[in-house]
Amino acid sequence: MRVGVVGVSGYGGGEILRLCAQHSAVQVVYAAGETSAGQRLGSRYVGLGGALADLTIQKFDPHNLPPLDLLFLSLPTGDSRAAAAALPPDLKLIDVGGDHRFVDGWTYGLTEVTGPAAIADASRVADPGCFPAAALLALAPLVARGLVEPTGIVVDAKTGISGAGRGGGSTFGFADVNEDVVAYNLFKHAHSPEMREALSRMAGGMPASLVFTAHLVPMTRGILATCYAHGHLTTDEALRAAREFYAESAFVRVTDAPPHSKWAQGTNLAFVSYAADAEAETVIALAAVDNLGKGAAGQAVQNMNLMLGCPEQLGLELVPMLP
Amino acid sequence: MRVGVVGVSGYGGGEILRLCAQHSAVQVVYAAGETSAGQRLGSRYVGLGGALADLTIQKFDPHNLPPLDLLFLSLPTGDSRAAAAALPPDLKLIDVGGDHRFVDGWTYGLTEVTGPAAIADASRVADPGCFPAAALLALAPLVARGLVEPTGIVVDAKTGISGAGRGGGSTFGFADVNEDVVAYNLFKHAHSPEMREALSRMAGGMPASLVFTAHLVPMTRGILATCYAHGHLTTDEALRAAREFYAESAFVRVTDAPPHSKWAQGTNLAFVSYAADAEAETVIALAAVDNLGKGAAGQAVQNMNLMLGCPEQLGLELVPMLP
Amino acid sequence: MRVGVVGVSGYGGGEILRLCAQHSAVQVVYAAGETSAGQRLGSRYVGLGGALADLTIQKFDPHNLPPLDLLFLSLPTGDSRAAAAALPPDLKLIDVGGDHRFVDGWTYGLTEVTGPAAIADASRVADPGCFPAAALLALAPLVARGLVEPTGIVVDAKTGISGAGRGGGSTFGFADVNEDVVAYNLFKHAHSPEMREALSRMAGGMPASLVFTAHLVPMTRGILATCYAHGHLTTDEALRAAREFYAESAFVRVTDAPPHSKWAQGTNLAFVSYAADAEAETVIALAAVDNLGKGAAGQAVQNMNLMLGCPEQLGLELVPMLP
Amino acid sequence: MRVGVVGVSGYGGGEILRLCAQHSAVQVVYAAGETSAGQRLGSRYVGLGGALADLTIQKFDPHNLPPLDLLFLSLPTGDSRAAAAALPPDLKLIDVGGDHRFVDGWTYGLTEVTGPAAIADASRVADPGCFPAAALLALAPLVARGLVEPTGIVVDAKTGISGAGRGGGSTFGFADVNEDVVAYNLFKHAHSPEMREALSRMAGGMPASLVFTAHLVPMTRGILATCYAHGHLTTDEALRAAREFYAESAFVRVTDAPPHSKWAQGTNLAFVSYAADAEAETVIALAAVDNLGKGAAGQAVQNMNLMLGCPEQLGLELVPMLP
Repeated sequence: MRVGVVGVSGYGGGEILRLCAQHSAVQVVYAAGETSAGQRLGSRYVGLGGALADLTIQKFDPHNLPPLDLLFLSLPTGDSRAAAAALPPDLKLIDVGGDHRFVDGWTYGLTEVTGPAAIADASRVADPGCFPAAALLALAPLVARGLVEPTGIVVDAKTGISGAGRGGGSTFGFADVNEDVVAYNLFKHAHSPEMREALSRMAGGMPASLVFTAHLVPMTRGILATCYAHGHLTTDEALRAAREFYAESAFVRVTDAPPHSKWAQGTNLAFVSYAADAEAETVIALAAVDNLGKGAAGQAVQNMNLMLGCPEQLGLELVPMLP
Repeated sequence: MRVGVVGVSGYGGGEILRLCAQHSAVQVVYAAGETSAGQRLGSRYVGLGGALADLTIQKFDPHNLPPLDLLFLSLPTGDSRAAAAALPPDLKLIDVGGDHRFVDGWTYGLTEVTGPAAIADASRVADPGCFPAAALLALAPLVARGLVEPTGIVVDAKTGISGAGRGGGSTFGFADVNEDVVAYNLFKHAHSPEMREALSRMAGGMPASLVFTAHLVPMTRGILATCYAHGHLTTDEALRAAREFYAESAFVRVTDAPPHSKWAQGTNLAFVSYAADAEAETVIALAAVDNLGKGAAGQAVQNMNLMLGCPEQLGLELVPMLP
Repeated sequence: MRVGVVGVSGYGGGEILRLCAQHSAVQVVYAAGETSAGQRLGSRYVGLGGALADLTIQKFDPHNLPPLDLLFLSLPTGDSRAAAAALPPDLKLIDVGGDHRFVDGWTYGLTEVTGPAAIADASRVADPGCFPAAALLALAPLVARGLVEPTGIVVDAKTGISGAGRGGGSTFGFADVNEDVVAYNLFKHAHSPEMREALSRMAGGMPASLVFTAHLVPMTRGILATCYAHGHLTTDEALRAAREFYAESAFVRVTDAPPHSKWAQGTNLAFVSYAADAEAETVIALAAVDNLGKGAAGQAVQNMNLMLGCPEQLGLELVPMLP
Repeated sequence: MRVGVVGVSGYGGGEILRLCAQHSAVQVVYAAGETSAGQRLGSRYVGLGGALADLTIQKFDPHNLPPLDLLFLSLPTGDSRAAAAALPPDLKLIDVGGDHRFVDGWTYGLTEVTGPAAIADASRVADPGCFPAAALLALAPLVARGLVEPTGIVVDAKTGISGAGRGGGSTFGFADVNEDVVAYNLFKHAHSPEMREALSRMAGGMPASLVFTAHLVPMTRGILATCYAHGHLTTDEALRAAREFYAESAFVRVTDAPPHSKWAQGTNLAFVSYAADAEAETVIALAAVDNLGKGAAGQAVQNMNLMLGCPEQLGLELVPMLP
């Protein structure tokens, strides 16, 4: 099957290429990028080989595409709305950016929450943001089953610097960012309303509320979301609920110990764990993902598999490097 | 004046040596260490020069000390209780470890909260843990003035790996810890009761409650504490309260923007900032410190200055490296 | 086909497991480790799934093995000689450690230098050290063709900390090693005689001499070898010689620009490049590999493929993460 | 005494400010910067306090300066020549950039090589590049005494990313540079002719030749220079020569063990060590400095002390952080 990627200059688009290069059922036959147009893919991504390396990066033109079974849009938020509108209505699309989440006509692409069947039936899928992917996977088993209140939740998330995107390079120079942790966009992060909407839907339409803080930590990849929710339950009950909730999910692993962000690096895996305290009536729900994996490109390829009728895990049976 | 340091094999003891080496009014004339006994200080800490470098590290023997004006104990929690009991009752002591916090006869050494006068009058001071130092500096202006509830607080803190101590080296090898974030000791961290007690005292004896989670991030030094508390106030009110609260404090700086942990690196500075959201009735209080600075050795030297009648800032006018 | 791995507690053994887990023709049915015996593989390496995760780690006993097509020995230097001697003489062995390089009865396992046919015919293969793997791949095209002198070579190599092995954890704690570069084992590194012997053989038996210095740099994986050799040639001639020399090699890529160590991370790739200066009569030969990839486990799996009659690249078509 | 700094937007200029802020005899009364003009110094460098923090950054205008005892120029190479020409001829100048090294009328500012008396007498001093500072300090004792040949030297240096300057931020984004080592500017680095000229002068005018390669390693600060030179001497002879050569130098320490770049971090210290091999007739000379310390701002303040008649070490008695 033939797929295309728009936005290969960015980290997310580059990671989709990496995953498709290792995928046995699809071939990337179209790659578009703003700042890298005209280059060979193999010049920009030296690890690529074969025909993929020889593909020339195009300026994106929605009216001039080769025949494609599916197209990935991996553009900065704000740029994919017009792009999607100009594309043929029968072309299957996955938007990795932020423009179509909870927009009519688009299916929310957090597979384990939306359900693989709904993704398989969709022709336009809006993938979740990297922080919502992590936080919602941690909270879903508890919120969906009413084990915690959907209000008053605190989500404190830590991301590697690639989360700022390649465009962030000038602001996030190594010497400035190394040996540093900082919070940003307090009470104003674009992923807050996305999480609230998703939590409310999980809670059967009940109002949801949360405070979300994003932090940059000096590593390249990875997100750890530490979520605090109110509820009367034990650690064992939380773990059991999660194991049931994710019984059919190949990519979510429930662990007794707090997960390391590194466990997910380079893969589409998510690791979730829980600890509850009766006195505090609080449960801590933790999730570790790769922001470019389950938080972006891995999730996109998982959805592509479903939309194209491939096995959900195809090309994603990757084992993280440790160390 | 003549001071001694017990525990120079560890990171905290080493940092006390570094600060005293740059201090114009004190001289370290006694250094004791378990694993480094017998070595020259200058062999273990190559940056030291002069007479300090030539001092030989002793096995600690409380009955065989040179004349001292003050002694620092920088030992693993559990080891300083017996040590302190065996020392001459009139020797001024600062315990950087965890054995004497909120213990009768000892003054809690978070200077800006306890007050410099109380420290100056004390002969036995128990310095705060590194996480409490950060979190309490962020929360004190709000809790002490009743602007937030002292209950239901969430403290989510991120520390550099030196927080695990030199003894942590074998567990925290570079290749295992790099490119990773992880939470640990959920609901069980020894610093939780310390914070609860301190918050309750700040709140005039009202019961306090909090959930505290510590995280390791791949950097050498630094703590960022992100604290979530309930209250009806604006960002400006929080910032103003902090500016008033810290008006006389040389080491605490209130910033409009979220502080970077790096701003405090190598110094005794603490940076605090605030953001409030009316709808969520939540304020986020942030503090950035160096876990070995205001979180350990810097705080210890600040208290030493007060206890020995020196200017509070002497030897601590250090400017952080940026980058 | 059924393979076993001895030494799964270490980084090299763990990486062999990771690669075999993603390999379609072999199954690891035996895993032995000293410090991890008794554990499930999936507990130690959380990224592993399926049957492999359920394998129990054994104490190594050469007299009590399941039927195997090939066994990897990934032990500290000094430990595999006795192990190999005790194993059935008809069992195919690959020694990733240092005990059998240039030992009678063993084939030196740097495939591109020894030749794939010789590896395919061998039943006992001694894989190169990580530094020799890098330096020899850089130098081979020049030395083998007589373009540079085999004497007076300087090899200055930089390795990530995983090169020190998991046992190095206690010496190489994050806080001590981060933000630091250091040289070690000057004139005494065990890889020097290995390089000298290999260079001499490449040079048709002429005596070879080199000075080799290893450096630790604060990253997890990767080696960059910067080699200085004397010869009258241009940059283009060096590049052309390398392109010809590696024309049939799937894993060695010759690049015009100096290679980044990161380009090889997680893969079995090696990137080599060259720059020559007529006036200095010196050529700089650069090679970038992953010390756990082409420098250890990747090289081992490549040789396994040849020894078991699989395609050389099977299971090794991995694309590095960038970023 | 009153000093000014031109180029405070950059890393070098910022470090000069940091060192002067901790200096008891000078006051920075003038700060100029291109991209930061109009800002308070305290906004740009949050660690600064007091009057220095309240200084407003100016656009540099050589015709509109306050009375100054000395002015630092810390500009990109190429920008300080015109600036210096326009300044009053009797104003003492230190150029940290590359425009005036070995230019008539300027004294080469590597104090330990040029000699402190010559610096004290000079009114225009051109400080060495960061790599030459390291390499020349390693090589000087051997070359100046004729213990090694001044030709055929290899200098292989590793620098932290701040060496690329703040302007390098966009090229050296954290996610691209982390976990990576790379060589750059092979045979073409601007510091090569500077080293050659300085070595030739050390060797009494004999021709000198060297091959120099710079490498970027993923740390913020620090340089380790590994230098290979030909000579018949033992390790002890080399160490002894260096101890004699630097007997009067407060900032250069000769160590038996290979120095860690981290030992010099944040200071003006340089650590040098040696290892020789009789068979190879080669000596390895190592030097560790902070590229922003002895490699830039520390060296500049050391020279300022001499030029203004202060004690050479004033304000530079800094002890490195370990860890």
